[in-house]
Parts: sequence; C-alpha cells; structure tokens
Amino acid sequence: MDIIKNAISRIESPDRRVMVKTQKRLDLLTKPQGSMGRLEELVKLIAGITGKESPSINNKFIVTMAADHGVTAEGISAYPKDVTAQMVYNFLNGGACINVLARYIGAKVIVVDMGVAADIKKHENLVSMKIGMGTKNMALGPAMSRNQAVKSIEAGIKIVNELSSAEDCDIIGTGDMGIGNTTASSAITAFICGVDVEPVTGRGTGIDDRTFKNKVKIIEKALSVNKPLKNDPVDILSKIGGFEIGGIAGLILGAASNRIPVVIDGFISGAAALIAAGLEPKSTEFMIASHCSLEKGHKIILNKLGLKPLLDLELRLGEGTGAALGISLIDAGIRIYNEMATFGEAGVSEKN
Amino acid sequence: MDIIKNAISRIESPDRRVMVKTQKRLDLLTKPQGSMGRLEELVKLIAGITGKESPSINNKFIVTMAADHGVTAEGISAYPKDVTAQMVYNFLNGGACINVLARYIGAKVIVVDMGVAADIKKHENLVSMKIGMGTKNMALGPAMSRNQAVKSIEAGIKIVNELSSAEDCDIIGTGDMGIGNTTASSAITAFICGVDVEPVTGRGTGIDDRTFKNKVKIIEKALSVNKPLKNDPVDILSKIGGFEIGGIAGLILGAASNRIPVVIDGFISGAAALIAAGLEPKSTEFMIASHCSLEKGHKIILNKLGLKPLLDLELRLGEGTGAALGISLIDAGIRIYNEMATFGEAGVSEKN
Repeated sequence: MDIIKNAISRIESPDRRVMVKTQKRLDLLTKPQGSMGRLEELVKLIAGITGKESPSINNKFIVTMAADHGVTAEGISAYPKDVTAQMVYNFLNGGACINVLARYIGAKVIVVDMGVAADIKKHENLVSMKIGMGTKNMALGPAMSRNQAVKSIEAGIKIVNELSSAEDCDIIGTGDMGIGNTTASSAITAFICGVDVEPVTGRGTGIDDRTFKNKVKIIEKALSVNKPLKNDPVDILSKIGGFEIGGIAGLILGAASNRIPVVIDGFISGAAALIAAGLEPKSTEFMIASHCSLEKGHKIILNKLGLKPLLDLELRLGEGTGAALGISLIDAGIRIYNEMATFGEAGVSEKN
Repeated sequence: MDIIKNAISRIESPDRRVMVKTQKRLDLLTKPQGSMGRLEELVKLIAGITGKESPSINNKFIVTMAADHGVTAEGISAYPKDVTAQMVYNFLNGGACINVLARYIGAKVIVVDMGVAADIKKHENLVSMKIGMGTKNMALGPAMSRNQAVKSIEAGIKIVNELSSAEDCDIIGTGDMGIGNTTASSAITAFICGVDVEPVTGRGTGIDDRTFKNKVKIIEKALSVNKPLKNDPVDILSKIGGFEIGGIAGLILGAASNRIPVVIDGFISGAAALIAAGLEPKSTEFMIASHCSLEKGHKIILNKLGLKPLLDLELRLGEGTGAALGISLIDAGIRIYNEMATFGEAGVSEKN
C-alpha cells in the first residue's frame, strides 16, 4: 500500500499560472482567439499538467494491460477466454488494431501481462506483472484478494515510474484486453455510480439477447454476493474488478503523480478511472477522455468523472485504440501551438 | 455551364458491390465485427467511392479557396478585410493553422485566389482563378453576375480535374478564407434550408452583440433586396454567395465526378455543399462531414444534407482545418483495414 500512498501524496493540481501563459501565446497566433476550440483547451491542460509553457509530446506510450476473468465461466462473453492470450501474442507481433494506430500516431505499445490465464512467452515488448492466472468467478465470491488488488494498482504505478525515469515519457494512453472485462466494468460502474446494472451493461464483443440477460443477472449476483464497501475502492476492485482494471487505475495514479497527461481509452479504462478517482479525486485533473464508447455505461462514467470525451465514433474495441486517436488530436493541438505564426510574424492585422 | 453539366453527368453513386467486399475483409480482422464503429463505415465509403476494394489515401490535398466580400462595407466582421490577402500570404509561407495540420497529416495545401480584393504575388503553391476583386455588397444588390457564379463553380471543377489527371489524388479536403464569408454562408443557409436568419447566424471571427444584430439585419436585407430563385443554385450563389463558396461547390462536384472522396470543412464549406447538392443531389454521397462547427448554422446544414460529422471540437476557424483533422481519422481507418492481421493469420479464435 506504500507505493499507492506515495503516488497519491505527490499528486498536485495542474499549474494554473503556466496555463495562463500558454493562453497568452495561443492568442498571439494568426487565428481568431479560441477558434481552435477544444484543441486549444487541450494544449493549455497539457501545459498545466507538465508545467511546461511550450509542451511537446514526442514520446508517446500506449500501455495495454491484459488479464483474464473467472466470471467467463458464467458464459457472459461471445468469445472463448483463450482469446485474451491469443490477442496478447497478436499485440506482440504487431497485428492488432492498437499496433496499427500506435504506429500511425508514433507511439510505442507496452503490453502488460497483468494476469492472463496462460503462460505468455517472453518478448521484448512484454512486461510481466502477473498477479494471478486470471481472477476468480465474481459471481461466487471475490474476484481477487485485497492483497492482489493492491498489487495490481501498484503494478500500474511502477510501470509509469519506470517510464518516467528511464525514458522521456510525454503522454500515456491506457488500454485493456481481457475476455469478460466489460462484465467486471459494468459491475464497478453500477456500484460506484449508484445505478442499476442493466443501464450500464452493454453487448461487449457482441453478445445476443439471451447472453445479455444472463450477463445482467450475473453482475447483479456478483454485487449481492460480494457486497463491496462503498468508500473503499480497493475493496471494490478486489470483489468485482480485474487485474488489468487495477493496473490501469495504477497507471492513472502513476501518471498524475509524475505530472504526465493520461489519455483514458473506453469503458474498461473508464471503470479503472473510477477506482483511481476514488483513491484520489485530484487524479481526474490529469485524465483526458479520448472517446465515448458504444458500451452504454461509459457515458455514465464520463459524467461521474466530469470528463467530456474528444471523440464519439461508436468504437467498442478497447486495447487503447480510442486513446491512440485521442492522442493524435492532442498532438495536432500541440503542433498548432508550437508551429503557427503569430500576427506579428506573419504581418496579419489584428481584430478591430 | 458545359463544364458543370459535364461534371454532373459523370456523377454515379458509390459502388455497393465493392462496399460489400470491403465489409467482408473488415470482418476477418482480429476485432469484434463492427467494433471500430464509424472508422469501419468510412473505409467502406471510401472503397465504394473510389471503386477500390483496398483503398489507400497516400495523396491528400487540402484546397483552401480565398476571396473577399463586398458586404464587409456594412461592418459585419471583427477583422478588417485586408486580412484575407494577408492570410493568403500566411498560407503560402506555411505559417497558418491549415499549414500546420496539413503537414501533420501529410497533405499538400493548394491555395486558390478565387477573388481576393488585392493583387496576390505569384507563388508556386498559389493557383489564380480570380473571378473579380471581391464580390459586390449583397446588401445593395447581387454579389456577382450569373456568369461569375458559373465561372467560380467551374474553377473548382477544373482544379479537381487537373489534380485527378496530373497527380494521384486520393482525397480532397475543402477549405476557405474570406473576411465576411460567414455572412454570405448564413444567407445561403437561411435561404436554402428555409429558416430564419438569426438561428443560422453566428459570431464569425468573434463579433460583439451590436455587430451581431447588424449582421442579422444585413443578411435579412440582402435576402429581401435580391430575392434569389428557389430552385436555381447558381442564382442563389450569384446573389448572396461568394467566389470561394462557388469554388468549393465546384470542388465537391469535381470530386464526385472523378470518384474522389471530398472531406467537407466547416460552415462556409457547408454552405458550398448546399449549392453543390442543389445542382446534383448525388454529390452528397461523396461528401464526408469532418466536424460540426461552433457556427450555429452548420448543424442545420448538416441535417439538411443528411451528413453526420466525425468531430465536434468547437472549432470555428475554417481554412480546411476541420477537414484536415477529419482526413486523419479516415487515414486511421484505412490503415486499420490494410495493416491489421486476420483471425487466421494471428491464430486468434473467432466468436463462439
């Protein structure tokens, strides 16, 4: 728990003074003031987070965390659970969607085994933080022990601490892989946001009506069997969460404590963000919501966190794909800030 | 008028058979079917437009058309009209926002003088299609002659015809520059969409309340003085349009007739799209709406054209900046399609 406490103790709000200076320069550029809308807001936020008046985001990382879920025994997914491990190899071989998008935006993908239910062969791009061979079935009892929940969050913090010290890390995008993880995420969302299960449960990888009804029932059962403690995010994570969800919560806290902007992917990353915000509300000031997922619970998470997504493209893949697209927009904003001519430089008349 | 008629006669709907084939390949990729949402729809549309099952968009162009507006004499803008010419030089020198974003997405910016009220010095990136030294004041009579309206549309078509034959042109983004052109665009939108002036009039470059009220009054006056003909888009353009608006309408028709996807920028490009759709409704099938502008009339245009924007980032700059961001999302989709591994290639199990 010391690693978590230490990270949280270092989190301070973005620097408003730097943001004011950045706004001043934005207003000198050859465009009507504020006309690049949310891209200008992003530039200011990145400046405030990093404390750099002229920020750059050259070194981009997508951290994709994978783990298995015991609740798949209840038949809540359209895909067999072997797919989690198979997709990890796909990530390592560069063939998945997140690899394509990371190449496109110039980011490095870090694949983390948080608890895949298979031995994953060593690979230079794989980080092993294995907490267990998948969680237990949360419909029957806690998904993991409290100690495992703490360890999963700490794993995420450690990864960011290392990225931050070993390499210049300018921005982090979160990502997930885990057959069954929308089930855990819906459970977390329903519990933390205090809403019914059905309105925050979606079709995941594409389940039919019967499986959907079963999924809702299983989540309701998991909540009543486990009775998570309201103001204890670690307890919630341990009872109805997942190893990758804890890992992503750790990434967020680690990013905030190292003053690195963290771009939140979709629904699963959103559930992790709820855990992170529960541990330290100030961490939300470092979160940038990349998109609004088709998974219907995501909107409720974003409202709860007070985050406005950059994109709404009906995505529902995860892996960090939405985060990658979000980072490309942030990069566009940063380039505008750093490369545009000022009114003075270009000899353009200012407003009457 | 022959150039316009010829272009229109060549416009045929996107090829549905190719789109079906493209969907089949999309469904083999290692992701739940449809999980990349609107990016998958874009890939299919580009395939249907180009007729290529595996489309690429290596050669991207942003065509930024500039012209002046006589109606600026009525004091409807926050900036002096000299800014149009000054910004053209900024475009040519690479210092404007559209230059930054075009570099970022790997597009070439073609700057077109459609009718700036100043002699613009020759430059390798400048295309001169000057129809006049700015339009006349539409509050007092027609903005231009019918012949000038035809010529401005033809100029846009010619540019695409040349791009299409001289270079491999895979995609075109539209862009505009012209102090006063939100006034003309609001007039066109109110007239074609059959709505009042006030709900489709915005703050342009950032005018105050008094100027806004005057802007609405001037647009109402222009409509009552000119009485455009309902089913005659050339008449509408001539009476309450602008040279760059006609040029962009021509770009759209030219793109559709050459089976090139055309990414529509914001409000001014939207008004041009209304003119193009009036001349040939099928041209809308080639339009991709990049974003929804903060200019409030834009939403009404998009509804009228049946287009759903990709982005909603409160942009209101024009120049083609929204189009550039839209192209970057389309590019992401195309890369996913061309670079992702299939289930078979990656050894990933398919749906149960």
